Amino acid sequence: MAKDREKDQKEKKMFVGIAWNCAAELKFLLTALLFLCSLATVLQFLPSRFSLSSSDLRDCLSRLSTAAAAITNTSDVDAAVVKKVLAPPPLPPPASPSPPSFQQDQVLEGGIIKRGFNPYGAASYNFILMSAYRGGLNTFAVIGLASKPLHVFGRPTYQCEWVPHLSTQLQSVTAVGYKILTDWGYGHVYTVVVVNCTFPVPVGDDGSGGRLVLHASTNGGGDRKLNLTDSFEALTEAPGSLNVSYFTSPPKYDFLYCGSSLYGNLSPQRVREWLAYHVRLFGEKSHFVIHDAGGVHSAMLEVLRPWMEKGYVTLHDIREQERFDGYYHNQFMVVNDCLHRYRFMTKWMFFFDVDEFIFVPRKSTIRSVVDSLSDYTQFTIEQMPMSSRLCLSQDAGKTFRKWGIEKLVYRDVKRGIRRDRKYAVQPRNVFATGVHMSQNTAGKTTHKTEGRIKYFHYHGTVAERREPCRQLVNTTEVTVDGVPYVLDTTMRDAAGFVKRFELKMVGSILQRTRQ
Amino acid sequence: MAKDREKDQKEKKMFVGIAWNCAAELKFLLTALLFLCSLATVLQFLPSRFSLSSSDLRDCLSRLSTAAAAITNTSDVDAAVVKKVLAPPPLPPPASPSPPSFQQDQVLEGGIIKRGFNPYGAASYNFILMSAYRGGLNTFAVIGLASKPLHVFGRPTYQCEWVPHLSTQLQSVTAVGYKILTDWGYGHVYTVVVVNCTFPVPVGDDGSGGRLVLHASTNGGGDRKLNLTDSFEALTEAPGSLNVSYFTSPPKYDFLYCGSSLYGNLSPQRVREWLAYHVRLFGEKSHFVIHDAGGVHSAMLEVLRPWMEKGYVTLHDIREQERFDGYYHNQFMVVNDCLHRYRFMTKWMFFFDVDEFIFVPRKSTIRSVVDSLSDYTQFTIEQMPMSSRLCLSQDAGKTFRKWGIEKLVYRDVKRGIRRDRKYAVQPRNVFATGVHMSQNTAGKTTHKTEGRIKYFHYHGTVAERREPCRQLVNTTEVTVDGVPYVLDTTMRDAAGFVKRFELKMVGSILQRTRQ
Repeated sequence: MAKDREKDQKEKKMFVGIAWNCAAELKFLLTALLFLCSLATVLQFLPSRFSLSSSDLRDCLSRLSTAAAAITNTSDVDAAVVKKVLAPPPLPPPASPSPPSFQQDQVLEGGIIKRGFNPYGAASYNFILMSAYRGGLNTFAVIGLASKPLHVFGRPTYQCEWVPHLSTQLQSVTAVGYKILTDWGYGHVYTVVVVNCTFPVPVGDDGSGGRLVLHASTNGGGDRKLNLTDSFEALTEAPGSLNVSYFTSPPKYDFLYCGSSLYGNLSPQRVREWLAYHVRLFGEKSHFVIHDAGGVHSAMLEVLRPWMEKGYVTLHDIREQERFDGYYHNQFMVVNDCLHRYRFMTKWMFFFDVDEFIFVPRKSTIRSVVDSLSDYTQFTIEQMPMSSRLCLSQDAGKTFRKWGIEKLVYRDVKRGIRRDRKYAVQPRNVFATGVHMSQNTAGKTTHKTEGRIKYFHYHGTVAERREPCRQLVNTTEVTVDGVPYVLDTTMRDAAGFVKRFELKMVGSILQRTRQ
Repeated sequence: MAKDREKDQKEKKMFVGIAWNCAAELKFLLTALLFLCSLATVLQFLPSRFSLSSSDLRDCLSRLSTAAAAITNTSDVDAAVVKKVLAPPPLPPPASPSPPSFQQDQVLEGGIIKRGFNPYGAASYNFILMSAYRGGLNTFAVIGLASKPLHVFGRPTYQCEWVPHLSTQLQSVTAVGYKILTDWGYGHVYTVVVVNCTFPVPVGDDGSGGRLVLHASTNGGGDRKLNLTDSFEALTEAPGSLNVSYFTSPPKYDFLYCGSSLYGNLSPQRVREWLAYHVRLFGEKSHFVIHDAGGVHSAMLEVLRPWMEKGYVTLHDIREQERFDGYYHNQFMVVNDCLHRYRFMTKWMFFFDVDEFIFVPRKSTIRSVVDSLSDYTQFTIEQMPMSSRLCLSQDAGKTFRKWGIEKLVYRDVKRGIRRDRKYAVQPRNVFATGVHMSQNTAGKTTHKTEGRIKYFHYHGTVAERREPCRQLVNTTEVTVDGVPYVLDTTMRDAAGFVKRFELKMVGSILQRTRQ
């Protein structure tokens, strides 16, 4: 008991000492840093091997900065917990992290030539943080990019740490980060990683605030000799900012659309049609999240603007991710950010593209359809591929005045082709998501939705800014380049309603929209 | 003229100033470094975003160290040339390379949410230097590993610089580094790169010494916003060390074997047979370069030792490359190092494995064969695949006393299978090499070597340390698991000669070698 009290007092002293007067540690660390930097700088001036210090510097500095982080990080937590989380000791002796020397070839006893290998620089980041969201009282999702070969050939690990706000004097809590690779098989320099941080106990649930720190370790991925750990803050919760009822309250929306990365010179008219059509379909309790990876040029923004002003659309500018080379403008990262960001704000979440139009048959509504599927966490939707170039002869001379969904009326009926599906989920049961479906859900998935819901796909029509009609046809069936088509006026028949709906909702402002 | 003279004088002054008294630059740089380090350290102690400095630090330090390198590097060269080579200015103002700040999400005018992305750490090196060799008066080869996705998805570039020895007052010379990717399609975290540095003029050809510096630029590979350049010394030539006749003199050897990476628990007895067989085949003017990636255990070393002592074998310990995850123990790097290291020391260079035995028919010798192919820079060699488990019934009970090439006498004759070939080159005409052939040669390649030279391949026999005979057969033809075999005693017939040759050359020391 006496021992415990002594320990408690010591800890308190330590806490006060560090929190209110960290000058001693600061001085020590600064001195160590300066010493190392000086050493490194001097090394650079040695005439023979001037640039060995570039990578070595990084090594020693990363060690030091990790140590520094350890202190800042954990000044208010139990030292034993800290040690488990952070491998390097909190205060390394200034002489010990000496830079590894340049490896020269050596001739060993018996004439064996021991060859040296010398690494320089860095070709990719370990982790690129996009966002982190709380998913409940004890769980979080961290969304970002990580080095692709690190995940394919190495075994990087993630450790989560909840660091309570300074004022609470609570201990920090740690958990193994469960990584989900949502675009496995894709990716370039970087691949998308969703790290699920689920702690054994609720954290910060009293609203006292805190920080979620992610420790990302390479485990020798780029160099088997080194296990580099990068520790960074993924999320900060200010005291009083947490609303615990958020996770159990009925969601604000019935339907939320998570769009993929928009890129290129897209057609404003096609997106105008798409938006009016789907706001009408999904109704008042719906919302559309659009991601601009460079595709929302000024004419496109004009189309979005009236719907943004009416509160139907939120536009995310994600152009900065273009810095990091991943699969198709990092679309897998973007949809996962959307999932977790809006997870508690909608009953259903839809994932499809802006050249695709969801359709439910007459006598049903989108609401009656999802209600009939409410036992499922996820359902997928069948594709109706539409020609992006065949139009009706009767539209000759007036195609430019007609909407895309009005004039493109020939459906590809070639059999035996596996066609992509799109999908919708009840996001509270989903942990990560892909582009064609999610493979990380709690609850059932169904693909048996034929006759209840489908989508018309006008492939390639959004990516170009010219009149799509290339060939006019006056029969109900036609075969072009070996592909059989049939006349399908389902969407054409809806066009008039959609036009009147748009006029009613946003006025005539969009009527001069160009291809 | 006056201006020119003034400039000359200034340059001389600069040179003297830097060479004999670089204290001013040193102080300046040190101050800048210390200032930045201090800033970074202090930043780490800010409670809210403690770890942003990890990557930023690297950025600012790499800029500074590049600048430092620029000075050291080029203190004795024309400033105009320097500028072309090294993008960053030689002396950045200490305030300018401020660390990029943590990107927060921002709400822009009109409600657009501008998302931030924050990178941390490093997952792979830009370049790992194994070696560099001079290939003539104006040309060099630099051999190493580079980040694989950087080469697959990015466009890294290499710039070569010859920096003459301080005493010469000569200008440095630059050239574009021509990169050769020898294992395209393979590779893991790292891929093999051979950079050919060919300068427009001879460099250091008067024997005055100098340094080959490689500038490796990522060109935005890991981050499109940054073009990081790592500059490092690939080769140093001490004054007086260059022997220009080396490149034109007749080579020391007729035949040099470049072995691939040896790894795993290999059979000493199989390697004993291989070595005795090939020393006998290739003769007195031959040499064998063996690369130990972990496969040369003590029993294996005992087998190599007598041949090393007789000068037939050089053993390279390349275990250190295991740190860097490339294709099969970085074998493509190893064979390229061997090519360039021994390029002027041998007339012919052979590339094959230690479970493969080169054979030339009776009435010819290996010398008569290569002489008949001397018009070709490269020729490839047909494979005779041998069973690694079928032996003769007549050897029953005494297989353990027989050599592998003596008892494994069944040849796989299945048709219609594309089988690997091995190859030999005249290395002075080769710029880079692969495992099955070189695709970077000057001069012709022939595959029409049937009847003149072939190799017997005992696949899998070296990688395990047990008796290979599993099934005894007493017919001249047999089909096992659908594969037809015929009796082929070519190698069995040679075994006696090889045993006597070994005894003559190294005595009885190897006669107790185990499987």
